[in-house]
Parts: sequence; C-alpha cells; structure tokens
Amino acid sequence: MATRPRIEGVLSPVVTPFGKDLAPEAGRFVRHCKWLLKSGCSGLAIFGTNSEANSMSVDEKAKLLDALIAGGVAPAQLMPGTGHCALTDSVALTKRAVEAGCAGVLMLPPFYYKGVPDEGLFRYFSEVIERVGDERLRLYLYHIPPVSQVPISLALIDRLLARYPGIVAGVKDSSGDWNNTKAMLDAFARSGFDVFAGSEVFLLDTLRHGGKGCITATGNVNPGPIDEVFRRWRSAEADRLQAGITATRKIVQKQPMIAALKAIIAHFGNDPQWRAVRPPLVELGREEEQALIGELKASGFAMPGLAG
Amino acid sequence: MATRPRIEGVLSPVVTPFGKDLAPEAGRFVRHCKWLLKSGCSGLAIFGTNSEANSMSVDEKAKLLDALIAGGVAPAQLMPGTGHCALTDSVALTKRAVEAGCAGVLMLPPFYYKGVPDEGLFRYFSEVIERVGDERLRLYLYHIPPVSQVPISLALIDRLLARYPGIVAGVKDSSGDWNNTKAMLDAFARSGFDVFAGSEVFLLDTLRHGGKGCITATGNVNPGPIDEVFRRWRSAEADRLQAGITATRKIVQKQPMIAALKAIIAHFGNDPQWRAVRPPLVELGREEEQALIGELKASGFAMPGLAG
Repeated sequence: MATRPRIEGVLSPVVTPFGKDLAPEAGRFVRHCKWLLKSGCSGLAIFGTNSEANSMSVDEKAKLLDALIAGGVAPAQLMPGTGHCALTDSVALTKRAVEAGCAGVLMLPPFYYKGVPDEGLFRYFSEVIERVGDERLRLYLYHIPPVSQVPISLALIDRLLARYPGIVAGVKDSSGDWNNTKAMLDAFARSGFDVFAGSEVFLLDTLRHGGKGCITATGNVNPGPIDEVFRRWRSAEADRLQAGITATRKIVQKQPMIAALKAIIAHFGNDPQWRAVRPPLVELGREEEQALIGELKASGFAMPGLAG
Repeated sequence: MATRPRIEGVLSPVVTPFGKDLAPEAGRFVRHCKWLLKSGCSGLAIFGTNSEANSMSVDEKAKLLDALIAGGVAPAQLMPGTGHCALTDSVALTKRAVEAGCAGVLMLPPFYYKGVPDEGLFRYFSEVIERVGDERLRLYLYHIPPVSQVPISLALIDRLLARYPGIVAGVKDSSGDWNNTKAMLDAFARSGFDVFAGSEVFLLDTLRHGGKGCITATGNVNPGPIDEVFRRWRSAEADRLQAGITATRKIVQKQPMIAALKAIIAHFGNDPQWRAVRPPLVELGREEEQALIGELKASGFAMPGLAG
C-alpha cells in the first residue's frame, strides 16, 4: 500500500464556471483553481455540492478533471467528488480519479432513496471500492444530511473502516452540527480516519479535537484567512482569527451559497460570466448581490490577486 | 404537431432485473415487460422509482430501452423516466426516448438541491424541452416529494403548461395525498393535461375526477385486477373492484416496495435471480418474504402466465 502523506488543511469545493450555453468552462475553472492554490488552499475538492457537481454528467466532470491536470494542477492536491446515485457512475469517476493520481475522492452516498438501511450503504461503498480495485484509493465519506437526506452514521463508518482500513480515509462532516463532528473525532480520529469540518466555522474546534482541516464553500472566496487559522491554530491568535473567518462566513451565507460565491467571484474578478449557475439553481438578484458585496466590502473583505 | 392519441390506463413502473454481477439483464426485462402488456398494462413507465432507475447510468438505461424495442415492444406503449439531477443527462435520455418514438417521458425534477425556487425548476424543464427541440415530445411531470423531496407545485405546472402546451402533457402524482391529486385534476384536467395517480389506491377517485389512469408500483405484480378497475370504472362493480386492488396493495406495501415486488416476481415466476437489487437497496429477508408471499396466497393473489 502506498504511504504518501494524506491531504490536510483547507480544501475548497471549487465552484464550476458555466458559459452562456451553460456548458462547463475549463479555462475559467483552471484559472480559479490556480488562484485558490496560491491563495491558501492546500487542496481542491472539485465536484462537490458547491461545484454543482450533480448538475453535470460524469463525462462533463471527467473532462474538467483532465483539463485541470493538463493545466498544471497537481493531482496530489485534488479530492474530486465522485459519489452518484448510480453505482456505475460512481465507479467510473472514482476509477478515473484514482488513475489520474488524485489524493482521494469525496463520496456522497446514493441519495435518491431515503431511509435506506446502513447495510445498503455499506454494500454500495463496498461495491465501489471492490470495483475500483486499486490500493491507491483514498475514500472520504461525505456526510451532508441537510442536502443528501441520507446520513453516514457512526456505525457505518466503523464497519467500513474495519473492512477497508487505509482505503476508507476520512469524512467531510457537513451536518452543521458540532456535536456530530465531535462524535466522529472522538470515535475515529485516532484510527487513521481524517475528519474535515464542512464549514470553517468549526475549523478551530475541529483542529483542537484531532481533525485535519476543513472543506468549505467559503474557501472559494476567502482562502487566505481560513488557511491562516489552519496554520496558526496553536497560536494565541487562533480564537481571534477564527472569529474573523466566522464573521465573513456569516455575511456570505445570508444568500443562497452557490449563487453568492459566484457573484463574489464575478464582482471581485471583474468577470460577469461567473454568475451563471445551472438550473435548478438561480443566480442572485441585483439587490441581493449589491447587499452582499456592500457588506463584504464594509467588513474589509478582499480577494487579492483575483482580478489580475 | 403530432396528434397521436395520448397514452392512458394502467402503466407499470417496471422493476429492473439485475444479474449476479448487478448488471441490468435485458432478457428478463423484455420478458417481464411483455408479460405486463399481455396481463393488463396499457403502458410501461420504465426507469421509474421502482425501476431503480437512478441506480443506473444513462448508458445502462439507453441499452435497456434499445433491447426492449428490439425485443418487439411498441415504443408507443413506453413512458420512460428521463429526469436526472444533471441537465445534460436528462436531455440525453429524453432525446433518445423521443427519437425512439416513445409515447412520452416521465420526468423527475433535479433532486439533489432542496428548497430550490420554482423559477429554477421552470428553467430546468424549459432547458430540457428546448434542447430536445422535438414537437413529438410529451413530457409528464413526476411529483414524488416523499422521495425526491423536490415538489412540482401547481404554480409550476401552470407556468409550464402555458409556455409549452401540447408538450407538457401531464403528471404522475406520487404524493400519496388525494387532496393534492384532486387539486391537480381540478386545475388542469380540462386543459389537455393528463393526471395519473401514483398508486392504484387512488385509481377510481382519479378516474371519477377526470384523470387518465395510474402509474403504480404494484402494476408490476397485479396488472390484471388494476386494469379491470380502469376498464369498468363506470360500472356498478367499480367500488368492489377498487377495494380488491387496494387490499392487495396494502399487503405488498407492508414491506419495502421494490424488494417486495422483486420477491413476488421471483416466487411466482420461479426465478430466484429476480430478487437482486442494486445497493443502496437490500433484498427482503427470508422471514419477510415468507410472510409477504403467505399473505398474498391467502388472499387469492396470482400472477397468471408468469411462470410459463
């Protein structure tokens, strides 16, 4: 088994730019990814919830992954989302990511059927792991019950970790519930299982309890200050730094998150096409955007180097 | 615009057989579809919730559709489910269905993001219709909030019907709420919009209020008696016939529906491989299956011609 060090720090679930025809735009995508990596992100969780990943086909995602690597981004910094409702789709994109050398994959449970038993989810993840059949696979479970409606229970993690140690590598907890993140940390952080907070609001607490970082929407626009909390979490400044990134998060999340992130990138990057979202999402209205940008500017928010 | 008569009656969301390797099995699928059509179904809503459609890739579904037509089933009897989270997936399978000559398509809303505005859903269905760009398209909306968690509101139907008359052809209401079905019937049944109940429990009520039939899970195993309610709904026997199919439904739905349907087909068709489901679903346990089959037999249930 490979012993390459695991990814940690601040990962951004990269928003996906779409053109006027709503097709994914590789050029803008690669540029934004490179800006993120030079601005504080240690990794890129492309194809996450905030990437509108489920609004794209497997083929569209595979082409963006290829473009990103061809564009010079190191696969070792990538943790693509590869979980779909269809077993065969998840296998196809996971295999592609592993073969490309990605650090890991972040996998949603199949999310169409609700109330499925843990046994069914165990079989699902097992099938993916067995079919990919590659010791290089590092699978991070994606717990986001407010959206997926299908939770990853502690009992399921325990069972998967026992069956696939080394392969089952961690979790992103987007429950929004610190008690749940803490329960995951208490149960598994000492078992080679890397817990990432799903929001920077919980970054400092996560690090203090043995977690490895955060994978956060707002990483798309505020990577530097979030990374500063990660780098300086043991310092006397940590609580003050955490308060700063939490305040920024709270401004952004007053609006629908994905449209808000794209409006911010469009504004601070002087690139209006960034506002486009795929249906069923809708871009921000003019007034919502003005309120958002106004409040961010008043707070001292900036995206250095973006508009260059 | 084509004036071919619209499909009506009893449609079965056909369960999908999987082999030991969990691959879809075209042979068993075509045989079951033909049994359904000779046993009372007027149409087949392949690739529905009960078909584990979202557990299959677009390519797997396209191949099953091809096999079905090559196997001699008339496309005019087919209403495949073609709604996916990804716009491009929905367009691809819908286009394929229209080009194959299918009677219509049954389209889920994109179901990953929750709480999306009607404006986003309107844009989604509009994009699909415009990209398919074929006057032959008959689009039936699929309202199943207990599973999709994304409802199709009356306001959305109104807007789509006004923009795409003739193309937006109807709805399957799987809300499980007769008041909602009745509201759809009252609002749209006289506007060339065909309302199908999502369960035969509501078949007679639906027909009495101007609806066109039902698209029901249990159609997979009990098509004859359900079709008898459809054919004789104006007769003096209608209420008695309805009570009979409702009683059978209530036996089946004591167990998880898809696994139960497959266990019934496996048992009465003497074909154990039919029990296979794709993860995250799990087949029935032995005791659950014995209880189900025992209760069905005691009620006089049969599947004539299945094991032939």
